[in-house]
Amino acid sequence: MQIVLINPNTTASFTSRIGEAARAVAAPGTRITAVNPPDGPVSIEGYFDEAYSVPGLLGEIARHEQSADAASITGYVIACFDDTGLDAARCAARAPVVGIGEAAFHLASLVAGKFSVITTLGRSVPALEHNLVRYGLASRCARVRAAEVPVLSLDDPNSPARARIGEEIAAALREDRAEAIVLGCAGMADLAAGLSREFGVPVIDGVASAVKLVESLGALSLRTSKAGGYAAPLPKTYLGMYASAAPCA
Amino acid sequence: MQIVLINPNTTASFTSRIGEAARAVAAPGTRITAVNPPDGPVSIEGYFDEAYSVPGLLGEIARHEQSADAASITGYVIACFDDTGLDAARCAARAPVVGIGEAAFHLASLVAGKFSVITTLGRSVPALEHNLVRYGLASRCARVRAAEVPVLSLDDPNSPARARIGEEIAAALREDRAEAIVLGCAGMADLAAGLSREFGVPVIDGVASAVKLVESLGALSLRTSKAGGYAAPLPKTYLGMYASAAPCA
Amino acid sequence: MQIVLINPNTTASFTSRIGEAARAVAAPGTRITAVNPPDGPVSIEGYFDEAYSVPGLLGEIARHEQSADAASITGYVIACFDDTGLDAARCAARAPVVGIGEAAFHLASLVAGKFSVITTLGRSVPALEHNLVRYGLASRCARVRAAEVPVLSLDDPNSPARARIGEEIAAALREDRAEAIVLGCAGMADLAAGLSREFGVPVIDGVASAVKLVESLGALSLRTSKAGGYAAPLPKTYLGMYASAAPCA
Amino acid sequence: MQIVLINPNTTASFTSRIGEAARAVAAPGTRITAVNPPDGPVSIEGYFDEAYSVPGLLGEIARHEQSADAASITGYVIACFDDTGLDAARCAARAPVVGIGEAAFHLASLVAGKFSVITTLGRSVPALEHNLVRYGLASRCARVRAAEVPVLSLDDPNSPARARIGEEIAAALREDRAEAIVLGCAGMADLAAGLSREFGVPVIDGVASAVKLVESLGALSLRTSKAGGYAAPLPKTYLGMYASAAPCA
Amino acid sequence: MQIVLINPNTTASFTSRIGEAARAVAAPGTRITAVNPPDGPVSIEGYFDEAYSVPGLLGEIARHEQSADAASITGYVIACFDDTGLDAARCAARAPVVGIGEAAFHLASLVAGKFSVITTLGRSVPALEHNLVRYGLASRCARVRAAEVPVLSLDDPNSPARARIGEEIAAALREDRAEAIVLGCAGMADLAAGLSREFGVPVIDGVASAVKLVESLGALSLRTSKAGGYAAPLPKTYLGMYASAAPCA
Amino acid sequence: MQIVLINPNTTASFTSRIGEAARAVAAPGTRITAVNPPDGPVSIEGYFDEAYSVPGLLGEIARHEQSADAASITGYVIACFDDTGLDAARCAARAPVVGIGEAAFHLASLVAGKFSVITTLGRSVPALEHNLVRYGLASRCARVRAAEVPVLSLDDPNSPARARIGEEIAAALREDRAEAIVLGCAGMADLAAGLSREFGVPVIDGVASAVKLVESLGALSLRTSKAGGYAAPLPKTYLGMYASAAPCA
Repeated sequence: MQIVLINPNTTASFTSRIGEAARAVAAPGTRITAVNPPDGPVSIEGYFDEAYSVPGLLGEIARHEQSADAASITGYVIACFDDTGLDAARCAARAPVVGIGEAAFHLASLVAGKFSVITTLGRSVPALEHNLVRYGLASRCARVRAAEVPVLSLDDPNSPARARIGEEIAAALREDRAEAIVLGCAGMADLAAGLSREFGVPVIDGVASAVKLVESLGALSLRTSKAGGYAAPLPKTYLGMYASAAPCA
Repeated sequence: MQIVLINPNTTASFTSRIGEAARAVAAPGTRITAVNPPDGPVSIEGYFDEAYSVPGLLGEIARHEQSADAASITGYVIACFDDTGLDAARCAARAPVVGIGEAAFHLASLVAGKFSVITTLGRSVPALEHNLVRYGLASRCARVRAAEVPVLSLDDPNSPARARIGEEIAAALREDRAEAIVLGCAGMADLAAGLSREFGVPVIDGVASAVKLVESLGALSLRTSKAGGYAAPLPKTYLGMYASAAPCA
Repeated sequence: MQIVLINPNTTASFTSRIGEAARAVAAPGTRITAVNPPDGPVSIEGYFDEAYSVPGLLGEIARHEQSADAASITGYVIACFDDTGLDAARCAARAPVVGIGEAAFHLASLVAGKFSVITTLGRSVPALEHNLVRYGLASRCARVRAAEVPVLSLDDPNSPARARIGEEIAAALREDRAEAIVLGCAGMADLAAGLSREFGVPVIDGVASAVKLVESLGALSLRTSKAGGYAAPLPKTYLGMYASAAPCA
Repeated sequence: MQIVLINPNTTASFTSRIGEAARAVAAPGTRITAVNPPDGPVSIEGYFDEAYSVPGLLGEIARHEQSADAASITGYVIACFDDTGLDAARCAARAPVVGIGEAAFHLASLVAGKFSVITTLGRSVPALEHNLVRYGLASRCARVRAAEVPVLSLDDPNSPARARIGEEIAAALREDRAEAIVLGCAGMADLAAGLSREFGVPVIDGVASAVKLVESLGALSLRTSKAGGYAAPLPKTYLGMYASAAPCA
Repeated sequence: MQIVLINPNTTASFTSRIGEAARAVAAPGTRITAVNPPDGPVSIEGYFDEAYSVPGLLGEIARHEQSADAASITGYVIACFDDTGLDAARCAARAPVVGIGEAAFHLASLVAGKFSVITTLGRSVPALEHNLVRYGLASRCARVRAAEVPVLSLDDPNSPARARIGEEIAAALREDRAEAIVLGCAGMADLAAGLSREFGVPVIDGVASAVKLVESLGALSLRTSKAGGYAAPLPKTYLGMYASAAPCA
Repeated sequence: MQIVLINPNTTASFTSRIGEAARAVAAPGTRITAVNPPDGPVSIEGYFDEAYSVPGLLGEIARHEQSADAASITGYVIACFDDTGLDAARCAARAPVVGIGEAAFHLASLVAGKFSVITTLGRSVPALEHNLVRYGLASRCARVRAAEVPVLSLDDPNSPARARIGEEIAAALREDRAEAIVLGCAGMADLAAGLSREFGVPVIDGVASAVKLVESLGALSLRTSKAGGYAAPLPKTYLGMYASAAPCA
């Protein structure tokens, strides 16, 4: 069983750290392949960065789908909390694709009536709120909060990021009636266990959640439905720099 | 790792069949303990039967929580598609509790934009619709359909139940724009794989789904939040036949 | 005309006080029969207590439905603000059944654009929020607030409970744009008139509301529909201690 | 106890028939005063007719509020299923005001999970759907159907109106999973009992429902909140033909 | 191209000021005819005032629809932020009708994820919230706030109204995550540009918005659909003072 | 006044035809610049094609924002009914950006209570439904229908596409209570006027709608708020083939 974890930004140290977080929870028989595209932004902070991450992410999927050991791939994890490119990825792959945002929301719904989300920057709040509405889980989310810490500061153990996240968790428990906390960035994966101990409520990381959900889908032989919006792309011509990405018959 | 699967009705052959379905998908290290309460209805078809199943179900949880190997219990599965007694069970247990209805809805949401549910009797449709609204996933469900087959007929290989279920699946794909199908009764667990092959879309069984989700929560050390509605029951006196069920300090 | 008011907890002094509140508003021709089950929790504070109250409540309904003067029963009131066991009770009875929670929400909707609810404990807030969503009236409720007073303290005239409730009402008017207040516990029935005078807005008690609504349904000969989710239970075997509760043909 | 029932259209025979329907269900001590304004449309079929009915309706309220026996008025019923002018009427009166549409929706919600509405003309469907959304009860309504019969044809015992209404009820039970039927026009009040017997489900008339709800509010001393949108009109000048309708200090 | 802008209150100075605001943004070829009815309240502050404004507003529409240059009318603007009488006006006119409230909400939705509304009085908040729900745009509105300034004070350059509005805008940006501000009263039209400069976010006035939207509909030859709720009124008799307003065949 | 209309697919004949449709409705002073990116799919049919269109679309925006006459640009139109890349485009541009899908939905809401959408392929239905939910206008849409005609067939006057679209419109009027029709593909722009005449209801094309809405925003000096999710991209490094697209300070 192989799970391809795709960090859609291009920062290899980030990929590596996320890969470790994934391996820490993967089942004994699960191999985690953590990759990131060669082209695109070094971090994803808002819709613009997202847009330039998606072709690279789809390229990683295409590369794995066409590889010799494609048959061994149980599924894909998209390791950005915005679930960057999730819909397109589902069209592209035969194996299931799970975003770390949706994964965290679904598991949080199993251990708490309501959860609050703590993300990095205020500019990412609307995207997460939109996702919650689309997934249907907005009513389970008390509030999406921003700690106002840059994504890459999470790579720096000396940054005040962790303290700021803790402050928002405290506020969520006090003001939102949140029963659990979802950490709203892949780069926060390491913090979940410690924060859960500190605050005495479930603190949920999306990377770990997505790994277990892909394993679950794999064990049940569940793949993305091709009957509607996630049908395989129709064969057609793509022009210019995307010519080789064109879907073929 | 041990998962206690509780069939809340009192039909042992049903319990046994569901236990087999659970074992078929459980991870190598997972032990499935399938039980049912000694007291209550032989099948659950509507709110009245549900109500008389809950104390027995909570009794099974209490028995396991107080047993010598309680520490080995990863979580509980409630194996009735109504998610009978789920809220009370979450209050009662330290380990997480997952209903097979919610489990199927959550996994279906990961492989399809919209799903339809095929349950047994029309009288169960409102309860499932209510659950979908509460879970937040009503917008993901195209329609809850009833095959109008009694629950226990699913134990009988000669009943026309499977044919009726197939007819409703065909109607769901044709009329509801459903991209996946959720089977709305624990007793339909055996049918998922065959129906998925027949109709070419994901067909999702709640028993298998719940087993994998409890394993996932266990691997992530996620337990039910005790910070709100699922707080442990307050110690108090219970009178009469429930005296021994009273929560203590 | 007889209304059977069932306090689903087992505290007789509570039953008696609620019965008085009901009689105070009943029409001249209405006889209030206030009962409580012999078995179960002495108060209902959360989902676990609720679950152990329902069989006793259904037992009271069965006893009255099978009594000599069943034909004189206009309807049933469930006198716990969680509307404990409401769905099952509707399946069990021929006469209509009204919960005090829903009764208060419906009448509040006739005299105010938005209302806030003041309940006893924070752990009960999620259950009330769920009920509001199911009834469809969540959009009419500005907020469910908890005064953090135990249910049985409402029986004690020297407790600080009334003062705490007043503080939450003041906060609701100031912060929630609430135009009316719903008291979220049967034990608060006595307080409604005084609080309404004090705060100058409608303060609505569910016990009184439910009595008038059952009288209304009775006058219009409206009974619970048996066409869907509230159909009479199917005849079947119940095992063990619930054998005698089994629905028969 | 006096209830002022206002038919907002100007057809006296309609008023008289509705008044009879109200008296048939009123409590012994309730006096029904059925009136209609002297100015405005002879029937209300759509938003335009509605608009010209409201000042007349408010005039009737003003006349009664300023009359010698104003203190004896328990409340007002607006006897058009669109709940014509309900918000303005609530501002104008000290006593509570109930529309027959909302009344029927609220009582239907107490005896059925879902109801369908059968109104007169297709052009009225959007107004009723809007009301359901505003009241919060849209989720309880399976569908608003139109029998395509003119309002005043309901005054004619030889019209095919009753047959058409029956056909729509049959369709609602077959196609909508409706568990109860709400009759969507004041002029259908006489038909409820017969249709309920014919179809075996609750069939709910708004006129009768509103009378009982006003009696209920009266018995509980509940009046419209003046704390928000229903505050008494601010004193100010009205020009021209409405000069005498101006609110004064 | 002619746009008839109807101020539904009867204060001519208000009409004149709104007319100027409209002319300031109208396209070169657009003639603005600003009118108000002769009968009704001098300002609209709540549902009661609204009700007495509608016949006058419909009278203005009728007068223009029947005038010699009716064919030159591109559409109507209802210049009260409550969108007073919008539904009835749409039935009455062949040309499209746009309310300034809806106009502002729609344009705000094109330049911001979420907006807050600043209206005059708290009593108007529920009406605006209802409109947002009906239009479908409630999810785009973070909060409706009241500056608690009377409508006609906006005509007085020395009133503290502008300062109060500024305070609420500041609060909306700080507390609501609003990305844009909608000014909730026709009388605030002059303030939009200055407040937008001061706060650095789009501040949207409904009068200007509605003028541009009517011009847009006109350029596209889009008129109100007559296929449903906005069908032309059925010909019928109106009695008394409204006899001449009766729709004819 | 210049509007840059971006067809996000790479078929120049399509761009040219859409540009003509835009010019046909543009105001006298409006210059339409119709462009398409050099790289990407020749048509957009589903999420995968969408993803590969966005960088090209953003490239066109960057090119115009950095051009000598950037100050003359009133706004951008995204001429694909999926509103491809709308959020990212709003981050990238100072001038407002309007998608043709949202434009049509907003204008349809001004002339009809409910509309149905007729799009090309069933696989596009979920994306349009998602957009409607995000925009808040889902409650205004009766149904999204697919004519099952390929996008590029709309370029061929001999294809059966127009007939199929007409059949779906007829079905929408008959079955959905739709009062207006929205054409769900840029390539259908030419058909609106003829279909509106044929079916007697407003038939709305998004290209024309978006042109008028950008003109409206321009006339009111309304630009995208930079206060939240549409803030300008943070300056950062983009690697590889997207290096030159990186936002700078």
